[in-house]
Amino acid sequence: MSCCEHDSNGHNGAGHHHDQGHPHRGEHEVFPIQSLWPKQKFSREAWVAPRRGRENVTQMHYARKGIITEEMVFVAERERLGAEFIRAEVASGRMIIPANINHTSLRPTGIGINARCKINANIGNSAVTSNIEKELEKLKRAVKFGADTCMDLSTGGNINEIRRAIVDASPVPIGTVPIYQAVQKVKKPEDVTPDLLFEVIEYQAKQGVDYVTVHCGVLLQHLPLTAKRITGIVSRGGSLHAAWMAVHHKQNPLYEQFDRLLDICKRYDLTLSLGDGLRPGCLADANDEAQFAELKTLGELTLRAWEEDVQVMIEGPGHVPFHLVAYNVERQIEECHGAPFYVLGPLVTDVAPGYDHITSAIGATAAGTAGAALLCYVTPKEHLGLPNEADVHQGVIAYKIAAHAADVARNRPGARDWDDELSRARYAFDWKKQFALSMDPETAQAMHDETLPAEYFKSAEFCSMCGPKFCSMHLNRLVEEYNAGGSQVAAGAK
Amino acid sequence: MSCCEHDSNGHNGAGHHHDQGHPHRGEHEVFPIQSLWPKQKFSREAWVAPRRGRENVTQMHYARKGIITEEMVFVAERERLGAEFIRAEVASGRMIIPANINHTSLRPTGIGINARCKINANIGNSAVTSNIEKELEKLKRAVKFGADTCMDLSTGGNINEIRRAIVDASPVPIGTVPIYQAVQKVKKPEDVTPDLLFEVIEYQAKQGVDYVTVHCGVLLQHLPLTAKRITGIVSRGGSLHAAWMAVHHKQNPLYEQFDRLLDICKRYDLTLSLGDGLRPGCLADANDEAQFAELKTLGELTLRAWEEDVQVMIEGPGHVPFHLVAYNVERQIEECHGAPFYVLGPLVTDVAPGYDHITSAIGATAAGTAGAALLCYVTPKEHLGLPNEADVHQGVIAYKIAAHAADVARNRPGARDWDDELSRARYAFDWKKQFALSMDPETAQAMHDETLPAEYFKSAEFCSMCGPKFCSMHLNRLVEEYNAGGSQVAAGAK
Repeated sequence: MSCCEHDSNGHNGAGHHHDQGHPHRGEHEVFPIQSLWPKQKFSREAWVAPRRGRENVTQMHYARKGIITEEMVFVAERERLGAEFIRAEVASGRMIIPANINHTSLRPTGIGINARCKINANIGNSAVTSNIEKELEKLKRAVKFGADTCMDLSTGGNINEIRRAIVDASPVPIGTVPIYQAVQKVKKPEDVTPDLLFEVIEYQAKQGVDYVTVHCGVLLQHLPLTAKRITGIVSRGGSLHAAWMAVHHKQNPLYEQFDRLLDICKRYDLTLSLGDGLRPGCLADANDEAQFAELKTLGELTLRAWEEDVQVMIEGPGHVPFHLVAYNVERQIEECHGAPFYVLGPLVTDVAPGYDHITSAIGATAAGTAGAALLCYVTPKEHLGLPNEADVHQGVIAYKIAAHAADVARNRPGARDWDDELSRARYAFDWKKQFALSMDPETAQAMHDETLPAEYFKSAEFCSMCGPKFCSMHLNRLVEEYNAGGSQVAAGAK
Repeated sequence: MSCCEHDSNGHNGAGHHHDQGHPHRGEHEVFPIQSLWPKQKFSREAWVAPRRGRENVTQMHYARKGIITEEMVFVAERERLGAEFIRAEVASGRMIIPANINHTSLRPTGIGINARCKINANIGNSAVTSNIEKELEKLKRAVKFGADTCMDLSTGGNINEIRRAIVDASPVPIGTVPIYQAVQKVKKPEDVTPDLLFEVIEYQAKQGVDYVTVHCGVLLQHLPLTAKRITGIVSRGGSLHAAWMAVHHKQNPLYEQFDRLLDICKRYDLTLSLGDGLRPGCLADANDEAQFAELKTLGELTLRAWEEDVQVMIEGPGHVPFHLVAYNVERQIEECHGAPFYVLGPLVTDVAPGYDHITSAIGATAAGTAGAALLCYVTPKEHLGLPNEADVHQGVIAYKIAAHAADVARNRPGARDWDDELSRARYAFDWKKQFALSMDPETAQAMHDETLPAEYFKSAEFCSMCGPKFCSMHLNRLVEEYNAGGSQVAAGAK
């Protein structure tokens, strides 16, 4: 599919500057899953410049007018799908393209049940350390190994400056949780005022943040539903709002002033990620009344956002027993009218701190296979401490595995080609190609070279696991000869 | 349930010495999943002594006579199930208790759809290194972190001596793949004679091996079915048999002389693990004609074994796309009449060498949830090299996660209690208890202490991930207060 075959005619400032060259040409992924840090600088400034200042610049707004934006074409090519199909998906709300008009370095990404399953990596500093270079390094590492979006969860230091640097550098959509910064500006969580919170959101939107987690669905009347839980409210944002409401005995301002939020979203094309503040924090609390009461509210808010053409995705758990994961996805699709589901894991057991990238990648695969669109990674440090760069790496790979396994299971275009290509290289004992096609080439090669480092072994018909005498793939050559010449004999053998 | 409540009356030498004390008393696991290297020496010599020399000493044989053996009582207690129920399961073939009468240090384990999901760890030396102490260390580490069975896959050095040491030391069932030793004794795989293979099997049975992987179902007429595969035959044992058949143009001797095999099994209570020599080695080859032709043969052999009261489990794949995993289990249960399913992973993608403990733990969780009884671990080194002790550790934990997640999903007795207990400790900020209840306490504590090592933080109401101001569990105290006093206010708030 050519980058230019769509028939957009550029109404309302979208779809105009499509003849500016092909900044993504030549970077098209051979295997759709291997996202890479772009080799060349990319800017969509020309696409968005004409849109600035208009009342509603969301991708959904254009899609519903029948306009195929440059962003939709870009997404169509990445997904190996038609541009008109992408437009229709965005118009229906089943797919989002988080693409703030002020994030010009963005290479647009589609998130929805009919796109490849995506993964998010959380980065950001803590209250103690604040180092822009370090955060940019995390961003780069995450994107290099396949993060499709990143959330900057910084809570310390010069938050605005760090966010500016991350947005400017990032080729993937950047998300934030604005309540964190609002709380950082005051002494106690309950000191946040609604105006302060909206100021922070607008500031971040102006900076180019592509999506914000907003816990609009945690309502005052939901709080008693959490009383019998083992772990109460475990969402940071959810508990900040809950504490605020509990102290003030007032309703959630993000719910009460939802239209004010939508107004910001329309002007910047800021996508709402409706947070699940009441997600379960342990298996025992999964699928309880609190969780589903909030989900119902999020479904109502989804329809209100769509009335204003604002893009929405819904956040989901958390901690869920394996056999209930698919049900969570199905119920979300129903209650939220098909809006993309953005899940955190879920972890399928609570008992393995230190290995929660694994416990949660298991749940994430089941969620992705059932239709979840975006998987928020969990690192080995979850529940224990702030992840470092190595933890980010482990988390991204575990989730890339989950997302790709889901793509294969859902038979998404081209997904299994990658597996087949690597398996052919494996069978041919082409070790170098096998490493190159691996999700993490350096790690694969390092493990192989640990016992057989010499160059000779890069074409050897065995590895140290079985050795030459016991290598099945090597022995199989005898079977191949037999099959080539002697299958007549076989037919009468039994 | 008391260890003595069963009504066995000791026919045929089984069920006799039940009043010898309670060697396992006091070692009963609080949480059913935390298998530990036993603190005290254990011997079931008194149980098995009267059985020796009899024609058929299998657990299935006694079960079918209505006898509850000491092994069944032991298993019942571990599983929190009734002894009569265990007997009936063993009689039906749905559960096995691999317990060679010459493996007296064994603490019997039940493997079947109605027992806890079990995991196997492969150990064993390679042709290059041979060190008994090192292999015993791997055994100990694997069992300490929860391996329910171990396979000794040694292919070099003094194999017999290593196996003797492992069987003597092991509290868990030990399995082997006898064809490996047979091949080691000759120059080329095709030089193995049927007599040599049976001699090796009998020798290992006499040593006390509890179960053997035998590739009886790889038939000459199946070989052409593998011709179009991307990765051909990837089972080591399967390819050794296939190569032998291809060279000799003769049928598989383990199939042709299956009765000879059953005769050995009956005398020692050696359990058959019918190998899946034609399992798929990549996603593309999953669920193909070759795989299912062999499975059908294994179903036929299962019935023949059961005619002689020989215990059987069936080995399964391998590499399978996530959405096809449950189907593989359901089909095995049908084709093999409910005999326990022993799966290798399966890996849900081929593209992540270096992380195959994760790719396969995902498939293993789905398999265990669908009813697989025993999960053979895969380490990070799979496809790349021989695993070392650290790899064994990673593999065991990943599989313990999969097995426990499956136990929770299948609602097995007591399984979720463990999760709930840890979650309560987590919510109470009882860090020490949280570490103690973790699947891998040392790793969990080390990760926590990496940023907050001081003793003070072991009771702090936060960790370095969120810090004190942003800890949801800490903030939740405000919500608790509100719920305790103010829910009337909440009801009218919206």
